[in-house]
Amino acid sequence: MQKEAIYHRPKNNFAYAYDERTLHLRLKTKKDDTLSVTLIYGDPYDWKDNVWQYHKQKMLLTGSDDLFDYWTTSVEPPYRRMRYGFYLEDESESLVYTEKGFFTEQPLDTNDYFSFPFLNEIDVFKAPDWVKDTVWYQIFPERFANGDSSIDPKGVLPWGEYPPARDNFFGGDFQGVIDHLDHLTELGINGIYFTPIFKAKSNHKYDTIDYLEIDPQFGDKETFKQLIKACHERGIKVMLDAVFNHSGYYFEPFQDLLKNGEDSKYKDWFHVRSFPIETKPLPSYDTFAFEASMPKLNTENPEVKEYLLQVGKYWVEEFDIDGWRLDVANEIDHQFWRDFRRTVKQIKPELYILGEIWHDSMPWLQGDQFDAVMNYPMTSALLDHFAHETISVETMADRLTSLLHSYPDNVNEVAFNLLGSHDTPRMLTLANDRKDLVKLMYMLQFSFPGTPCIYYGDEIGMKGGADPGCRECMIWDKTEQDTELFDFLEELISLRKSHSAFGNSGSFHFVSAKDGVIQYKKETTTETLLFLINSSEVIQSVEDLSLSNETTSLFGNKIKPNTALTLEPFGYEIISL
Amino acid sequence: MQKEAIYHRPKNNFAYAYDERTLHLRLKTKKDDTLSVTLIYGDPYDWKDNVWQYHKQKMLLTGSDDLFDYWTTSVEPPYRRMRYGFYLEDESESLVYTEKGFFTEQPLDTNDYFSFPFLNEIDVFKAPDWVKDTVWYQIFPERFANGDSSIDPKGVLPWGEYPPARDNFFGGDFQGVIDHLDHLTELGINGIYFTPIFKAKSNHKYDTIDYLEIDPQFGDKETFKQLIKACHERGIKVMLDAVFNHSGYYFEPFQDLLKNGEDSKYKDWFHVRSFPIETKPLPSYDTFAFEASMPKLNTENPEVKEYLLQVGKYWVEEFDIDGWRLDVANEIDHQFWRDFRRTVKQIKPELYILGEIWHDSMPWLQGDQFDAVMNYPMTSALLDHFAHETISVETMADRLTSLLHSYPDNVNEVAFNLLGSHDTPRMLTLANDRKDLVKLMYMLQFSFPGTPCIYYGDEIGMKGGADPGCRECMIWDKTEQDTELFDFLEELISLRKSHSAFGNSGSFHFVSAKDGVIQYKKETTTETLLFLINSSEVIQSVEDLSLSNETTSLFGNKIKPNTALTLEPFGYEIISL
Repeated sequence: MQKEAIYHRPKNNFAYAYDERTLHLRLKTKKDDTLSVTLIYGDPYDWKDNVWQYHKQKMLLTGSDDLFDYWTTSVEPPYRRMRYGFYLEDESESLVYTEKGFFTEQPLDTNDYFSFPFLNEIDVFKAPDWVKDTVWYQIFPERFANGDSSIDPKGVLPWGEYPPARDNFFGGDFQGVIDHLDHLTELGINGIYFTPIFKAKSNHKYDTIDYLEIDPQFGDKETFKQLIKACHERGIKVMLDAVFNHSGYYFEPFQDLLKNGEDSKYKDWFHVRSFPIETKPLPSYDTFAFEASMPKLNTENPEVKEYLLQVGKYWVEEFDIDGWRLDVANEIDHQFWRDFRRTVKQIKPELYILGEIWHDSMPWLQGDQFDAVMNYPMTSALLDHFAHETISVETMADRLTSLLHSYPDNVNEVAFNLLGSHDTPRMLTLANDRKDLVKLMYMLQFSFPGTPCIYYGDEIGMKGGADPGCRECMIWDKTEQDTELFDFLEELISLRKSHSAFGNSGSFHFVSAKDGVIQYKKETTTETLLFLINSSEVIQSVEDLSLSNETTSLFGNKIKPNTALTLEPFGYEIISL
Repeated sequence: MQKEAIYHRPKNNFAYAYDERTLHLRLKTKKDDTLSVTLIYGDPYDWKDNVWQYHKQKMLLTGSDDLFDYWTTSVEPPYRRMRYGFYLEDESESLVYTEKGFFTEQPLDTNDYFSFPFLNEIDVFKAPDWVKDTVWYQIFPERFANGDSSIDPKGVLPWGEYPPARDNFFGGDFQGVIDHLDHLTELGINGIYFTPIFKAKSNHKYDTIDYLEIDPQFGDKETFKQLIKACHERGIKVMLDAVFNHSGYYFEPFQDLLKNGEDSKYKDWFHVRSFPIETKPLPSYDTFAFEASMPKLNTENPEVKEYLLQVGKYWVEEFDIDGWRLDVANEIDHQFWRDFRRTVKQIKPELYILGEIWHDSMPWLQGDQFDAVMNYPMTSALLDHFAHETISVETMADRLTSLLHSYPDNVNEVAFNLLGSHDTPRMLTLANDRKDLVKLMYMLQFSFPGTPCIYYGDEIGMKGGADPGCRECMIWDKTEQDTELFDFLEELISLRKSHSAFGNSGSFHFVSAKDGVIQYKKETTTETLLFLINSSEVIQSVEDLSLSNETTSLFGNKIKPNTALTLEPFGYEIISL
């Protein structure tokens, strides 16, 4: 066996508490190199006549990518503590792998084994229960709907005028959202993520002026309360965007710093590199990227921290929001986020905390910081295959399998799975206007572990390139909306709700990925669904579905046993086995 | 190249902040498989004409074990943020390794790279400065010295009566320690770790009755203040043992629970599995191991947490102690330890927090919990070679190299390196009374990254098997003390203090390990020390020291250039190059 490929290190995705009773253990081996893996485990203090009382349990091969096989198993240790090792076999040899390395015989000393010292409930990663049954919808308020022209910003343009620019305004507001909630209810979503709504200068509002005020172009606090109430009445959760990494240029403390320089009482609210403050050629203070208009806040300063935690509390306490999405979350210190979680969950334990991180996010998903991150690694795997056509189905499946095994299962179940946002070109545009491909992406997104999010307008076939192209005004003229995509999404959402295995209760694994066809299964104790996606331009037939009786697919098609199933080019099917 | 062996994941030992400006990056490859590794890195937002502005820097091979090569480098990113990847070469191919896997060409999109999003100072692992220059001495107070017979516990035995038992008492006390501080000063230690001193029933005091009282057999708070004062006057730091995982059976809240059962107001202070409370055959409540006399405390209960944090504060505030050693630290929840750190460091930022963990401890050493753990993996590597003789010098060096690369450098610098404790047989006994082997272990222990600790009595050649054998009374009769070991340790401590490269300022790496001879170097910018240890029973000669002039070794021996150096069986030498 290739010893160098074998990897395990307790915690993170390799040994974690799935719930307050259950541990999951995972091991990585070289692909096709190991025939079987058995977990050797026991209570560290359970000895009889100087012999450790261990148990053995076969591990399951839960996935493979291009390089590795992943083995997983689940144990409920009665005293919530465990020492363990792995017994690996191939055709010619067997090995025992523990914290002290490789052995040919099982070591006698439990100190040589891996340790999961104690399963303390408070350390278990646990997102709110409602999250995994949520389908999100992202609204960029300036561009969703203008419902109250009396509060339009200066120089507002006629709704839908082309092109949207980085500095123009169309007057989208809260009343507009309230007016169009039927559209969302009809689609079937039950969570809205709003990009920032606080007072700011730009149209995107990521340059906050006042964290405690609604931007007047959106409405006032009363309208916002009505919006929340209307959403809650429809069973829709509301998530706001917390931009705590940096403020806007016109944030009062920053203005004070600009005015008073070293004498400003807000001197330590920012990271000033040198006085006097300069904005050009490079800002003399830390910023988001190199944006002079977005000075980085010093979240290590107890005053700043206290201020932002109060902000975090305020909108939960006063407006009963259900979630915070954290902008540029990974550039802020971990201590801040730990205190943020504690502060807001104290008021509302069921609040959802979603971090914007585009990269591997394990350090933020250990139970003490975020409930989820924006799952861009999933996005890129799907786009690279279906839209950019730079990777095969095999590679896409490899990347998704690797991604799923890089996090605990309870983390995957609440991942925020998106195919686009205000920060990316729209998926239909990336897919060269190919609606058939967009549908296949939706199929996978909606059945992938996690909670799917639809970017406003994608459901009616809106197009658009990178910012500002992806921030066009929502199309409300029914005759210009693409209802085919809307209907398809509505059906997916409905299927997800009516079939437990479709959503987050179902375990996910690829059955095969080749010749442009992906097959994957989702299973619960009561239902097994087989998903088939043909992403090739030719008819494909799937030979053996192991069906014993004729059945009807979730899309209403008759499927016969002992007969090859034909998938049209870019066709798909979901079968309950 | 063996792709499956290549591993990197940001944070932990692979990508970490060494200080508030410096990042360390590390990569693991299959041993002897890769010729060179180059770090590709840049600021994520530093683009010119749509091209990412990256830099390249060769990485250093900082160590190898039996399976892997470890590559390390250090970068000070001007804006404290970084995207990076690795460029690997062997004789026939080159690869780029990033978060998205392996590429033949360097990817253009920085989202494909690894990310170290921002170096926030507050997240940097930072132990108190004084720790790395400390040499510790562990005292088991009941057995160190009886200085005040007026407070002897009932049934006290004559000092040194054989054998020590699990339930007998010899009357060791604080006055005894005060009386013998000269012994410690002469030896050269500058930190004492006391096993528990709070009111308890047993002789080891790990079964606390009252966390806010000194055990009367040791003295009173006044005597303890005198002891602290006397230590501080001699430049000796004092560390106490916090037994927070479990209380003793006679702890008042547990007694209340025994008496009042489900009606006890302390019902939630423990983890009761079922009422009525039973102690046999198995306790009906969680315990340390299966010890009915050590009920596990429910540290998730805010009342318990508050109580224990107050205890943590009390001894720092009132008695100015310098460190807390945390018993069974890994069975208590992480949230508790984060709050513990914050609480005690608020009062005394220079307090040292040392966790008792025998296993891989990365999750506790990320800056938010402990400053160090008891480095038993180092202990076992040394004992397995020198004492148990189950591994060769090669394997010992492999295990130590692997250990060093499994933690950040700043963590290694303050590791608590011990060769024995009240929980293990004494090293001289394990080494079959071979003082020459004990000396070699001390050589390695005192020059290994971290801070060494001497278990009371080991310095004068005390023997003893597992508990209670290792807890004999300290021998104060000079004629029965082994002064050879004392003198050797005194010399090592003195050399460690006078040579910057000997102690923790020197980087450590093995030059070779074969035929029973280990060579390793410690280097600072001003000094390079070569350590030579012959752990074989034959004379060994080291051919080439690359000396240009005659020099005198640290032990006063003349070393000639261009001449082989002869090491006697079990001989050693330290040469300044």
